[in-house]
Amino acid sequence: MTQELTVGFVGLGGMGRAMAGNLVRAGHPVRVWNRSPGPVAELVAQGAEAASDLAGALDADVLFSMLADDRAVQPLLDPTLLAQARPGLVHVNMATVSVDFARRAAAAHADHGLGYVAAPVLGRPTAAEAGALTILAAGTPELLDRVDPLLAVLGRRTWRLGAEPHLANAQKIAANYLIACAIGAMSEAAALVDAVGGTPSDLIGIVTDSILPGPVHTGYGAMVAERRYEPAGFRAVLGLKDVNLALTAGAEANVPLPLGSVLRDGLLDAVAHGDGDKDWAVLAEVARRHAGLA
Amino acid sequence: MTQELTVGFVGLGGMGRAMAGNLVRAGHPVRVWNRSPGPVAELVAQGAEAASDLAGALDADVLFSMLADDRAVQPLLDPTLLAQARPGLVHVNMATVSVDFARRAAAAHADHGLGYVAAPVLGRPTAAEAGALTILAAGTPELLDRVDPLLAVLGRRTWRLGAEPHLANAQKIAANYLIACAIGAMSEAAALVDAVGGTPSDLIGIVTDSILPGPVHTGYGAMVAERRYEPAGFRAVLGLKDVNLALTAGAEANVPLPLGSVLRDGLLDAVAHGDGDKDWAVLAEVARRHAGLA
Amino acid sequence: MTQELTVGFVGLGGMGRAMAGNLVRAGHPVRVWNRSPGPVAELVAQGAEAASDLAGALDADVLFSMLADDRAVQPLLDPTLLAQARPGLVHVNMATVSVDFARRAAAAHADHGLGYVAAPVLGRPTAAEAGALTILAAGTPELLDRVDPLLAVLGRRTWRLGAEPHLANAQKIAANYLIACAIGAMSEAAALVDAVGGTPSDLIGIVTDSILPGPVHTGYGAMVAERRYEPAGFRAVLGLKDVNLALTAGAEANVPLPLGSVLRDGLLDAVAHGDGDKDWAVLAEVARRHAGLA
Amino acid sequence: MTQELTVGFVGLGGMGRAMAGNLVRAGHPVRVWNRSPGPVAELVAQGAEAASDLAGALDADVLFSMLADDRAVQPLLDPTLLAQARPGLVHVNMATVSVDFARRAAAAHADHGLGYVAAPVLGRPTAAEAGALTILAAGTPELLDRVDPLLAVLGRRTWRLGAEPHLANAQKIAANYLIACAIGAMSEAAALVDAVGGTPSDLIGIVTDSILPGPVHTGYGAMVAERRYEPAGFRAVLGLKDVNLALTAGAEANVPLPLGSVLRDGLLDAVAHGDGDKDWAVLAEVARRHAGLA
Repeated sequence: MTQELTVGFVGLGGMGRAMAGNLVRAGHPVRVWNRSPGPVAELVAQGAEAASDLAGALDADVLFSMLADDRAVQPLLDPTLLAQARPGLVHVNMATVSVDFARRAAAAHADHGLGYVAAPVLGRPTAAEAGALTILAAGTPELLDRVDPLLAVLGRRTWRLGAEPHLANAQKIAANYLIACAIGAMSEAAALVDAVGGTPSDLIGIVTDSILPGPVHTGYGAMVAERRYEPAGFRAVLGLKDVNLALTAGAEANVPLPLGSVLRDGLLDAVAHGDGDKDWAVLAEVARRHAGLA
Repeated sequence: MTQELTVGFVGLGGMGRAMAGNLVRAGHPVRVWNRSPGPVAELVAQGAEAASDLAGALDADVLFSMLADDRAVQPLLDPTLLAQARPGLVHVNMATVSVDFARRAAAAHADHGLGYVAAPVLGRPTAAEAGALTILAAGTPELLDRVDPLLAVLGRRTWRLGAEPHLANAQKIAANYLIACAIGAMSEAAALVDAVGGTPSDLIGIVTDSILPGPVHTGYGAMVAERRYEPAGFRAVLGLKDVNLALTAGAEANVPLPLGSVLRDGLLDAVAHGDGDKDWAVLAEVARRHAGLA
Repeated sequence: MTQELTVGFVGLGGMGRAMAGNLVRAGHPVRVWNRSPGPVAELVAQGAEAASDLAGALDADVLFSMLADDRAVQPLLDPTLLAQARPGLVHVNMATVSVDFARRAAAAHADHGLGYVAAPVLGRPTAAEAGALTILAAGTPELLDRVDPLLAVLGRRTWRLGAEPHLANAQKIAANYLIACAIGAMSEAAALVDAVGGTPSDLIGIVTDSILPGPVHTGYGAMVAERRYEPAGFRAVLGLKDVNLALTAGAEANVPLPLGSVLRDGLLDAVAHGDGDKDWAVLAEVARRHAGLA
Repeated sequence: MTQELTVGFVGLGGMGRAMAGNLVRAGHPVRVWNRSPGPVAELVAQGAEAASDLAGALDADVLFSMLADDRAVQPLLDPTLLAQARPGLVHVNMATVSVDFARRAAAAHADHGLGYVAAPVLGRPTAAEAGALTILAAGTPELLDRVDPLLAVLGRRTWRLGAEPHLANAQKIAANYLIACAIGAMSEAAALVDAVGGTPSDLIGIVTDSILPGPVHTGYGAMVAERRYEPAGFRAVLGLKDVNLALTAGAEANVPLPLGSVLRDGLLDAVAHGDGDKDWAVLAEVARRHAGLA
């Protein structure tokens, strides 16, 4: 049944490439489009079809997009483009965009009688390759039902977070906020332990072995403890973007987020010191510098 | 061999009672002392001996103390008392005390030729009963070797964190700091999700199912999502005490802890609103009030 | 000499009306334009000429604009409009706009061979009426020389802050930041004094009589002490806008402004509680609420 | 009438020396005591009498003390000492002590039937020499009436802030808090102006010429603008002490002071970088470092 769905896929970065590949392998006709041609060729080699232009990717039953941020997705809201979409198209936007963008995107698609689903994900490229992403989806139940078989190819679990797409983005922004706070907390705590003569890696070992297990504390904790921020899993400039997404969503809803302001200041400090392209665990160096330890 | 060690135990609250009981059941002679008599009788019924006074508990090879805070442990540093201790006594202080107190306690014991080990724990009374605590120990290797069999009765794992006792306290304070930050982060994120129309329990479900599993996010996360802060697992006033332990240790070592200042202000706000005896997850209400949601 | 300069004036709010009137009284031909017609009629009665449209105000030697914010000034950057300006026009923008807007505005005028001077002011409408504003000006020396006689009509003193217009806006944003911090500080200090049983108006009396004289501490201090926030001298929503101007300028230059984050959170809290239209000294109520005093 | 009052004076530092000298010159018999002998000899040369010990200074109608902090004043609460005081003695404590200390001091004096007045001051040694201090006094009206003629010798104005002595200390702590916030605000604003290419001294010039005149903005503002922190008017370590007095008083009364937490972190950062003995305007360097400017 789902075999009959034609899929467009826009945005073949580290995440999108893996996801599109999984859709191809699941037997779906997939029309891919990407700003740079390399990944397109790669996907075509796996069985995908290259769209001749962006509009070509919208000649589909379901359009997936996996792009960097609001600005990168903005062209997909162009009225001229949307007017060329296959009637009945459902756009599944998997990017981490702002709450405000999600609202505008939903409205733009509705204006053209098209469906819009927000489905940002938790998980790294390895999880994307394994089809093991955690998918945070929001949209009308009818649309979610329609795309559910495709999402099942991409992820281990799909959460349904409401009928309004922006609710999925809010949850994704909130989840990233929890990651940011965990990194900031480990950064400060490690500086404290170090300053009194203790060993930060013991702290990370203790908590990940007991009260705070899981990939965030294990992965970023190791970076904090070892003061190793390259290669970056997630760059500080992107972390700053994500913290700003939370602060902006908060400001629009009159929700002060004081922990987020501390993290934002720390990430600005990191960027000011030339560490914007290092992993955002480089917050640990900011905490150290403020304590005269760096 | 460890059977031959006579144990004193001071502080039979929810944690101490369970721990002393485990030592009794492991076959050690245990002399217990407590401010209020009820728990003493309970332990005697299990096979412990009641010390006639505080000094009686120090007539032992190893003294365990499990008290509330610096102030409660202070009487154990009294020179007159320490002078009455059995020669060679090792005091294992399992309380969450300040770094500064740990330094003073180690010095006071050294003045009387006594041993001092800091061994604060991670775990609730249920873990204490099950002998499944995580024990953060610091002291000279010789002393740690000596008390190790006893600690093995109390915990699932003993971490050795250095020769200076205060290092264990610093790690414990840092671990609690991570818990506090996690609660604060969930509180703010839940307020954000709620304010934009989403469901906080979804957020907690998503992250505990994926990136942030474990008891801190599961347990406190449920309280935050359900806005249920009683019965308290850990009261806000105690949480404030613990955050202050971190801030004070930081101040002594010139380590700014800006996230901790935010948490401290939030907990003061909670106490000012009469919520000091609720669980410290009541930080979620503070975040809600600041957003006009409460 | 300056008599020969024809002046356009756009934006006849509380400030602009008074300023345009002063230019008329100083003998300059003034062509006024405003979104709502009332103030135009008022100025015409004083001797000004009504421009038939916005472009009409640009048929002048010098264009003054006194508008609310970036968004309100944006139409003045319209290329079609700028193409209609009298050759050699110098636009003196007296609004508190963002550093980024100032850069874009300077570039837009340069594209059309027009001059651009940033000249935001310190002072209330009463100071505008008295021609006693403090003017923060930036632009090329040649342009500043040209408009100087006109600025002398409007203000008691003109500061020259550099050749690049955005520098004046940065100084204005920074000055407003100092005001915001002073209000926030008085708010917290007053809550502290009150909570221990003292009298906040004594605090304000003491400091304005000695170490912190001047209109900021006297004026806003009285509001804080008396808990009287209406009529608003400067509304909380505008204060939030100004603090955000500082935070945004800081973010663009990688300058963390942690005091500003605290103020921003406080103002969001005020708005969330329905106090957005009260004077921004309502920060005092936020501080009181957090202390359980309100 | 006041001529008949015998005065004791303890604490002959930069401030106390000048104040005691003024009392001598006003014709009062003054018995001075100081930890180091140099200033005693100096005062004796001016006409004072040297007390043979601390108790000798309490053989007086009114005892003034001008000491550094709680710890330095603590010996004056010694019951044995207070028992030796001349009956009816009124102790006027002019130090910046904690609210809690003031409460304990008042109680200790009451226990011995002695009077206690808190009278901390605003002003530098030059103001002390000129008898131009601002005096913040609290105590029963009867006691304040009694010491008023002496305070009139020392200051330009005496504020009566309540019958409970700690109220004067709370006001002094709050006033210093306003100074600290002003310095912190100028530090951040100067970093912002500098980072965008402007001139910090212009900012200070603008605001002190208009909205923020007075010694705090003029004096500390010059230090911030010129990045000159020596000689210190008030050392960073003392500033940290004063901010902590506010935070502690706030914590005791459940008053969050988030701006104060930012200042505290900044001052810890300064101390961690070896700047503890520089003027607390060195906060400007902290702001610069965080922005990558230093």
